[in-house]
Amino acid sequence: VTSDEELSAGQLTAWRTFMEMQEVLRGRIAALLQADSKLSNADYTVLVALSEAADGRMRAVSLSYALQWEKSRLHHQLTRMCKRGLVERQCGVGRASIVAVTAEGRAALNAAAPIHSRHVRQLVFDRLTKQQAEQFAQISRTLLDGLRHDLSG
Amino acid sequence: VTSDEELSAGQLTAWRTFMEMQEVLRGRIAALLQADSKLSNADYTVLVALSEAADGRMRAVSLSYALQWEKSRLHHQLTRMCKRGLVERQCGVGRASIVAVTAEGRAALNAAAPIHSRHVRQLVFDRLTKQQAEQFAQISRTLLDGLRHDLSG
Repeated sequence: VTSDEELSAGQLTAWRTFMEMQEVLRGRIAALLQADSKLSNADYTVLVALSEAADGRMRAVSLSYALQWEKSRLHHQLTRMCKRGLVERQCGVGRASIVAVTAEGRAALNAAAPIHSRHVRQLVFDRLTKQQAEQFAQISRTLLDGLRHDLSG
Repeated sequence: VTSDEELSAGQLTAWRTFMEMQEVLRGRIAALLQADSKLSNADYTVLVALSEAADGRMRAVSLSYALQWEKSRLHHQLTRMCKRGLVERQCGVGRASIVAVTAEGRAALNAAAPIHSRHVRQLVFDRLTKQQAEQFAQISRTLLDGLRHDLSG
């Protein structure tokens, strides 16, 4: 059921707390990742996506869709990562642009992942009860499904 | 209790879903705000903070702390908003830099707020049960308190 009303006072407080929380959390996680691994959040996200793809390769257009990033944002990000040797552009069939993670990119990800994982555990999951962690997962899933449904509609 | 372990498989899934959700949600909210009101998320955040301060004014350093933004980020943001007439810089006591919302800034915020509020309601609260909305608020509060505690420690 979609309503056309504004937020209640309680909802507004909840929303502001959420927005502030996610902003501070993203900032903290990004700072730790950069300090530990010299990777930005965006670098890390791209490396995870490619490393989990078959042969460590994806079409740029598929990567753009998977990350929900606009083409120009992805292009600039990949250019920076290419220069640092973390990914490489390859020729695909026809004019398809293919992006592949390099051995150096995999090594950077493998070094960063366990450290990043511990930070997320300490900043998020160690602070929630088991029940809250389940609620956190369920609420995120519900909201994401709704957002995706809007896009496909 | 702080653990030194990595994330479990379930936690990793929950974390990735959360990160994707908040990224898509922020993007959607930002796009709607821009389309409706010609304000970025950052513009909106600054206008809300100033409009709720006494006399619509804050010391830049207090604003920076309240938003948890680095000084240079706030400086660039305020420069853009000054040029558009949404805020103005004023001389404070001694060398303190003061930022004030203008009548134009208040008008822009007042026009944007109810539309923004309806979008948040439709994208978030209409999709959660009353119980989930309470969980969402409580989890955000718990995580934010933890992050703030880290900073003050």
